[in-house]
Amino acid sequence: MSLSTEHHEHRDHDEQSAAAVTVIGLGPMGRALAGAFLDAGVRTTVWNRTPGRDRELVERGAIRASSAEEAVAASGLTVVCVVNYGAVDAILRPDAVAGALKGRTVVNLTADTPDRARETAAWAAEHGVRYLDGAIMTPTGTIGTPDAVLLFSGPEELYREHRSVLDALGGTHTHLGERICRAAAYDIALLDIFWTAMAGFNHALAVARAEGISAGELAPFAAGIGAILPAIFTEVAAEVDAGTFSDEGSPVTSTASTMAHVIETSEAHGIDAGVMRAAEGLARQAIGLGHGAEGFHRVVELLGRQRV
Amino acid sequence: MSLSTEHHEHRDHDEQSAAAVTVIGLGPMGRALAGAFLDAGVRTTVWNRTPGRDRELVERGAIRASSAEEAVAASGLTVVCVVNYGAVDAILRPDAVAGALKGRTVVNLTADTPDRARETAAWAAEHGVRYLDGAIMTPTGTIGTPDAVLLFSGPEELYREHRSVLDALGGTHTHLGERICRAAAYDIALLDIFWTAMAGFNHALAVARAEGISAGELAPFAAGIGAILPAIFTEVAAEVDAGTFSDEGSPVTSTASTMAHVIETSEAHGIDAGVMRAAEGLARQAIGLGHGAEGFHRVVELLGRQRV
Repeated sequence: MSLSTEHHEHRDHDEQSAAAVTVIGLGPMGRALAGAFLDAGVRTTVWNRTPGRDRELVERGAIRASSAEEAVAASGLTVVCVVNYGAVDAILRPDAVAGALKGRTVVNLTADTPDRARETAAWAAEHGVRYLDGAIMTPTGTIGTPDAVLLFSGPEELYREHRSVLDALGGTHTHLGERICRAAAYDIALLDIFWTAMAGFNHALAVARAEGISAGELAPFAAGIGAILPAIFTEVAAEVDAGTFSDEGSPVTSTASTMAHVIETSEAHGIDAGVMRAAEGLARQAIGLGHGAEGFHRVVELLGRQRV
Repeated sequence: MSLSTEHHEHRDHDEQSAAAVTVIGLGPMGRALAGAFLDAGVRTTVWNRTPGRDRELVERGAIRASSAEEAVAASGLTVVCVVNYGAVDAILRPDAVAGALKGRTVVNLTADTPDRARETAAWAAEHGVRYLDGAIMTPTGTIGTPDAVLLFSGPEELYREHRSVLDALGGTHTHLGERICRAAAYDIALLDIFWTAMAGFNHALAVARAEGISAGELAPFAAGIGAILPAIFTEVAAEVDAGTFSDEGSPVTSTASTMAHVIETSEAHGIDAGVMRAAEGLARQAIGLGHGAEGFHRVVELLGRQRV
């Protein structure tokens, strides 16, 4: 199905009114997804393993399914967003549900590892279930707004077929390619950046407080550090792809020395510095291997070389 | 001396032409500092422990000193920017140099710990040396441009007295208060954030590559993560100061689960996940202490509680 056909359908009243989706998983994110579909006028069936989460959605027009089997049978497209792929398996793999899904599409927006995405895709293929994997990169509140960022991977045809309905979730949607694990892999890499940065920020707040500096005093300067990261990420990424590791004014010897200052200051206040100690270990490893005059991003190569 | 007096002096030709500074330490940052002073028309004397670093500066009009003693005697204001406070001590504490500094001002822009700043201030006070501590928060290339960010702490009178000369370094200057260790403490906290985030980014690039994703493919999404950090830092800081730890859609149980996915994916590729393992340890600690429904920033309190 081509994008232009899809646009034609979008203008066709009968086809548009037939747009239907089932949302499985009604945690905060699942409820946001179902709400966005309802707001877009899509016929939305909802189901959650633990009952009682669907009241507000039903008041807004959602159809309550009494079982997972009934839920997936209600729509050609089922969007799943639960705690992890173990929960996905527990809901979708029983014979009755798998049977009802045959020939239908599952878009799995549950966060987990690329390996689990590959495994779920293999199960779907064996059972005649059409499968797309996806990842939601922005908080619950962004769903249905221009700020949402969603990633998808899997068969492009299937993505195009369901794109007009998925567009109800708002924001920027990117299809990362046919390899089913790509959305999960991007998700993992981006969450790695986000939660490591947050660990650094939380640690810095503890150290600042021990030095008599409030979080509010540090915040504008911390925001300034955050603001320079996108440009630095872009520069470092270009060097990493090119296999160059220039120091950009901060050789890894100097980085390691700075890290040691952070550790020393933390521990002088009795504050654990385990995260920075691990980071310093990587910097020292780069120095020990003769890369002291290069940038800290040399560790990308070193981490990669550990591959079994 | 008041700011208005300072402005008057600034307009006075004789006083202005008498503006003089000595720069000690001619690494990349020290050379940038000296260059900015020269560009601003300040009489600039330079010295470096290892000779041969001053050629280009001398060509641009800098005065070459033949010893540290001669260097500090040439100006009422000496700016020091060397590798760490150990190097500062080795240069400034010999009797001849300390004697020459008596009654003069040292602005120490060397990066080190708050404890070392306190110690150096105590030494300066004992020897009649007027002392300001400072930190440079932006790369070499920003010096002398509007992008430079510099922090200062110590006696406000002294800061005001030298501010018109220091302004030659460009950008935003903030005097953080009289407590001498504040610039170093802010510096440490901000470097904690920066280098932890860079460790996360480098690690993410290694994981992405193992999943067949190039740094260039990940970069725009990584930049997107960077772009949301300033607002999140600001929100989290307000909660930390208020002693509230709402989950904002991501309870620490969910954060720990995400971190475990990152670790599992890394280690499945043989990539060390020590940084994230340490961060996950903090999240698990918060959960173990009964804060599982709160946000990850609860760890600020837990780290603080470890204080000896």
